[in-house]
Amino acid sequence: MSFSMSKASLTALEIGLNALSAILDKAEAFAAAKKIDPSVLLNTRLAPDMFALVRQVQVTTDLAKNGGARLAGVEPPRYEDKETTIPELKDRLARTVAFLKTLDAKAIDAASDRLITFPLGPVNKGEMKGDDYLNHFVLPNVYFHLTAAYAILRHCGLDIGKQDFLGAIPIKLM
Amino acid sequence: MSFSMSKASLTALEIGLNALSAILDKAEAFAAAKKIDPSVLLNTRLAPDMFALVRQVQVTTDLAKNGGARLAGVEPPRYEDKETTIPELKDRLARTVAFLKTLDAKAIDAASDRLITFPLGPVNKGEMKGDDYLNHFVLPNVYFHLTAAYAILRHCGLDIGKQDFLGAIPIKLM
Repeated sequence: MSFSMSKASLTALEIGLNALSAILDKAEAFAAAKKIDPSVLLNTRLAPDMFALVRQVQVTTDLAKNGGARLAGVEPPRYEDKETTIPELKDRLARTVAFLKTLDAKAIDAASDRLITFPLGPVNKGEMKGDDYLNHFVLPNVYFHLTAAYAILRHCGLDIGKQDFLGAIPIKLM
Repeated sequence: MSFSMSKASLTALEIGLNALSAILDKAEAFAAAKKIDPSVLLNTRLAPDMFALVRQVQVTTDLAKNGGARLAGVEPPRYEDKETTIPELKDRLARTVAFLKTLDAKAIDAASDRLITFPLGPVNKGEMKGDDYLNHFVLPNVYFHLTAAYAILRHCGLDIGKQDFLGAIPIKLM
């Protein structure tokens, strides 16, 4: 199967979200072993005006569900932002993966030249061509927040590496 | 123009590298204004066993040049890792953008089903289909190190935001 918008979006997003879920499992085990309240990890941030871990995970899922939905031409589900525990965040990640699986790959593949309008904060909007929206907005933003979540946990001492970040990618090791 | 491997790689990589170069300009000005030796910023890391800023920038350029070259089927240039200043890192970023501009977009577009073998550390190798290599190795890794560089500077107090990270993306604000 050749290069396509649906693979570049759905497959990559699912791998990234599942990788983050597995990292959160390690964070939960780390907190238990170190007798740290997991909420300490969830409220850690790399700078006072950057998002804490809990918000990094929420925003990652928002970008994935909104990005996938807009490329497919359907309305994204709305999530309440009320998670306070790792299991709740893992449930949000799982719901997002399940939602992505409902999207029509053919509709996404046909979206490269379609103009997509999306909110930028509470007031402004952005408009991009479908392929630009995927290449230059959805993917960089999702990887930004996946990396921020990873880096917060590394900063807290969690023993994870690049393979945890990349997740279950289709690679043959030689 | 529809969705293509060359746009998803070359255009995205160039925007990301140029964005990092502009962030380094802000870091240089920040260091001057605060009377901080820029090498303090370049040697900052988010965890003791994560790369410092200077290495994050080097690895970003390595992933971009190696990724682009392997997709195009040419040998990537080798860089010595001897940068110690922001201007030297900006030169490395500019050389990488210039190299990406030499690559044959048609060769990259034809690489989706070609098997690509690449080193993973000093001993091991990985093998992936061209489109998988772009979607699940080059892009996530490049954005990982771009984000790490950004986050190190945010952690140091540099006043930058998401637009600095995304760079000159083709978006119409409404």
